[in-house]
Amino acid sequence: MKVFIIGTGLIGGSFALDIQQEYPDAIIYGVDLNNSHIKEAIAHGVIHQEASLDDVQDAEVVFITIPVDATLSVLPKILDVVNDNALVIDAGSTKQRICEAVKDHPKRRNFLAAHPIAGTEFSGPKAAMLGLYKEKTNIICEVEKTAFKLQEKALEIFSKIGMRIRYMDAVSHDKHIAYVSHLSHISSFMLGKTVIEKEKNERDIFDMAGSGFESTVRLAKSSPVMWTPIFEQNKENIIETLDEYIGNLKQFKKLMEEHKFDQVFDEMQETNHIAAILKGIK
Amino acid sequence: MKVFIIGTGLIGGSFALDIQQEYPDAIIYGVDLNNSHIKEAIAHGVIHQEASLDDVQDAEVVFITIPVDATLSVLPKILDVVNDNALVIDAGSTKQRICEAVKDHPKRRNFLAAHPIAGTEFSGPKAAMLGLYKEKTNIICEVEKTAFKLQEKALEIFSKIGMRIRYMDAVSHDKHIAYVSHLSHISSFMLGKTVIEKEKNERDIFDMAGSGFESTVRLAKSSPVMWTPIFEQNKENIIETLDEYIGNLKQFKKLMEEHKFDQVFDEMQETNHIAAILKGIK
Repeated sequence: MKVFIIGTGLIGGSFALDIQQEYPDAIIYGVDLNNSHIKEAIAHGVIHQEASLDDVQDAEVVFITIPVDATLSVLPKILDVVNDNALVIDAGSTKQRICEAVKDHPKRRNFLAAHPIAGTEFSGPKAAMLGLYKEKTNIICEVEKTAFKLQEKALEIFSKIGMRIRYMDAVSHDKHIAYVSHLSHISSFMLGKTVIEKEKNERDIFDMAGSGFESTVRLAKSSPVMWTPIFEQNKENIIETLDEYIGNLKQFKKLMEEHKFDQVFDEMQETNHIAAILKGIK
Repeated sequence: MKVFIIGTGLIGGSFALDIQQEYPDAIIYGVDLNNSHIKEAIAHGVIHQEASLDDVQDAEVVFITIPVDATLSVLPKILDVVNDNALVIDAGSTKQRICEAVKDHPKRRNFLAAHPIAGTEFSGPKAAMLGLYKEKTNIICEVEKTAFKLQEKALEIFSKIGMRIRYMDAVSHDKHIAYVSHLSHISSFMLGKTVIEKEKNERDIFDMAGSGFESTVRLAKSSPVMWTPIFEQNKENIIETLDEYIGNLKQFKKLMEEHKFDQVFDEMQETNHIAAILKGIK
């Protein structure tokens, strides 16, 4: 099985490692604009050899794991080149614009729009890890637009690497993911920014930070190259979540200013419900 | 050594476990208004026996590990009762109001104001863990107001359980901790609230949540009993941090609305600096 990984970073590299384990005869080709990524990916055993976009005509499976703005232009080019039996899967954190970009493409049925909810705050081939996708959710959009045989092939791969599948339309995906993923990243980045600004004059602050702060700002380590185009493609939904988040913060501040600490208590107690919800996720 | 733990939850219970390990001859007495906590604490080997506040006259060391509003009234009562050689240590996340409450107490020199930067989002005796304080920072305020011999005794205990010590005045402590601890909790609680509100009508949201969301809302599981009085006692500082945080979120939203994604990129890239800072913490 010839598998092409377009973008040999954390997401693509982790797919490559899992596929090597589950399909020992697979040959993994890596395509990356960043030449040092290719070298690292080969050195770390993530891919077997370098390839170019033209080579994907021989591909059985292609994973597109690059920033979502690049996907908009690269995905149609790949569909132009692949053979009729090839399965092309993306892994972008936005789905509406990507599905739109290829909705009239003659090879639309070779494409499966996916969003594996997995990752870490790190990036690049060195961040790739075997088993990243185990027991993680994979959201597949517009599955009916993918050829039946290729749906089947994709499900076999995802099942072997241990993912659970959810089907959703692209519009709902982008709306919901804004809450549970995109907003979390912004809240974390802005928390990091607020504390760094303060720290410029107060060098001791970070000596006082504990695991709680660390956990809350973890996502602020994430790659701007990956996240800027996500925020751009999902702009309307994210602005809506930001409005609600800012509104809640203002109301909490108002309760404090008015010294209504019984209501501050209630707010927190109601939100403790998140513990039960998070348990449900696992 | 007779050690009294006033409040046998996560913080007090973890001190008790560490002390049992480092001082095998120590007898640990527990005081708790919640009778089921006492039973749990005994069952889990956290304390040896129940005691009342009057019994602290025999104490060599007293840890006050209760919500900070309760500390304001309990700390003076304990100082009234203890003997002249007793060391009384608190562990509150605010220091200014607590130090003020006993500044004129005749036994002020028996008190050491401390804030161990350690904990988890869980609470109660079952959450207590051996080694919680290892390599954690302990901020000691107004150390000059504690009797020299008792400073020495406290440092010996903290050193044996593996803590690193920082000295700070109470006003600076409360100002800085608002940024790296109190604000993180509010940002997390309000993120949880925002998503829960949305989820009421959209049951699928949480199925889409990954480890990033989980990490960012982890602190929203924290106890309102513990946190409400902290927010009350540190109200002015926290409102200031909230203003800055809300301001940063609004500015980020504005950049998105004006489609200035090059600046969105810059904001994130600058904040990535948090990775280096967090590495420095460890």
